[in-house]
Amino acid sequence: MRTHRQEIWLEARTRRDFINITPQVAEAITESGIQEGLCLVNAMHITASVFINDDESGLHNDYERWLEGLAPHEPIGQYKHNLTGEDNADAHLKRQIMGRSVTVAITNGRLDFGPWEQIFYGEFDGRRKKRVLIKIIGE
Amino acid sequence: MRTHRQEIWLEARTRRDFINITPQVAEAITESGIQEGLCLVNAMHITASVFINDDESGLHNDYERWLEGLAPHEPIGQYKHNLTGEDNADAHLKRQIMGRSVTVAITNGRLDFGPWEQIFYGEFDGRRKKRVLIKIIGE
Amino acid sequence: MRTHRQEIWLEARTRRDFINITPQVAEAITESGIQEGLCLVNAMHITASVFINDDESGLHNDYERWLEGLAPHEPIGQYKHNLTGEDNADAHLKRQIMGRSVTVAITNGRLDFGPWEQIFYGEFDGRRKKRVLIKIIGE
Repeated sequence: MRTHRQEIWLEARTRRDFINITPQVAEAITESGIQEGLCLVNAMHITASVFINDDESGLHNDYERWLEGLAPHEPIGQYKHNLTGEDNADAHLKRQIMGRSVTVAITNGRLDFGPWEQIFYGEFDGRRKKRVLIKIIGE
Repeated sequence: MRTHRQEIWLEARTRRDFINITPQVAEAITESGIQEGLCLVNAMHITASVFINDDESGLHNDYERWLEGLAPHEPIGQYKHNLTGEDNADAHLKRQIMGRSVTVAITNGRLDFGPWEQIFYGEFDGRRKKRVLIKIIGE
Repeated sequence: MRTHRQEIWLEARTRRDFINITPQVAEAITESGIQEGLCLVNAMHITASVFINDDESGLHNDYERWLEGLAPHEPIGQYKHNLTGEDNADAHLKRQIMGRSVTVAITNGRLDFGPWEQIFYGEFDGRRKKRVLIKIIGE
């Protein structure tokens, strides 16, 4: 059994953003030399997500509006968490809808994906550096 | 370490449906011969889910109405994604609530489950053939 | 390859509660002796969640109000599942938002976490004993 660990650093320029990290994950799998196994990709921050969906800008716009409807950023004062001096309570909620991590299969040394699957980092409280963890186990 | 890979093909007759795939997953585990490990079960399509919950038709009806309330199919034109010619933007949203995949434990060669846990394929844009991936690693 | 399995028993005194189980998961990893690998932590019940977020009571209060807004407990009769004699349909819905399980990386024999990540058991139909499963694989 072999394992491989790697971090990706990201900095979204806006409060909320979706960034395609599929190339970095694919590269980590190649570097690991692992042919068959599982790969965990998770946000190391609790106001961000890692999820799999379509790389289509209209859909990302729909996600943005939908999440803002389900857990609005403002008014800031509607959330108890923001009494701590933060203004990111909504980001902690949005991240639960989109998920913390994905676990993906590795087959023949590659991401074992359907035709449209792409891995995204979902930022809900950006404009600072954040990390994604890649952990691979297999053989 | 051993790994095992299998696909399940499904075709829901309606736009939305929940299909119990526990027997197929249990069979794949038996075929793999793996006694102790982890099993990933994921939709290979981005308008479908794999999740674990109760096999109770009333609950499935509740899920259907609840998801339709949170992310209505119509009017089609409310979603930018549908400007691409698709009508399935709502399916991409519903799938995020229900999740892409489950990771389950294998103990003594069997699904290590609580008494009511069952694995479902959740279809949100059906009436065509779709795939679920099963990837097992262990010993 | 080695594996390790452990159960945690919990009993929330209220219908809904969030309980930090990070110490029990960390202890299970130490007991396993596994240095590099993956750890699955999942609710074995379908009206409960395991998720990762902040250990901040204001945020937990926000989660409680938010989930109650998205899937209200009452009126009981609004859910078909409750026609079976249950009153917990809302718990099956809330659990889908918060998730069934987390998969976390183990590096150098420890939870490989960002600075604020903590693992919680989310109870949505409490006042009885329930179980969480920990399954670790690695080396």
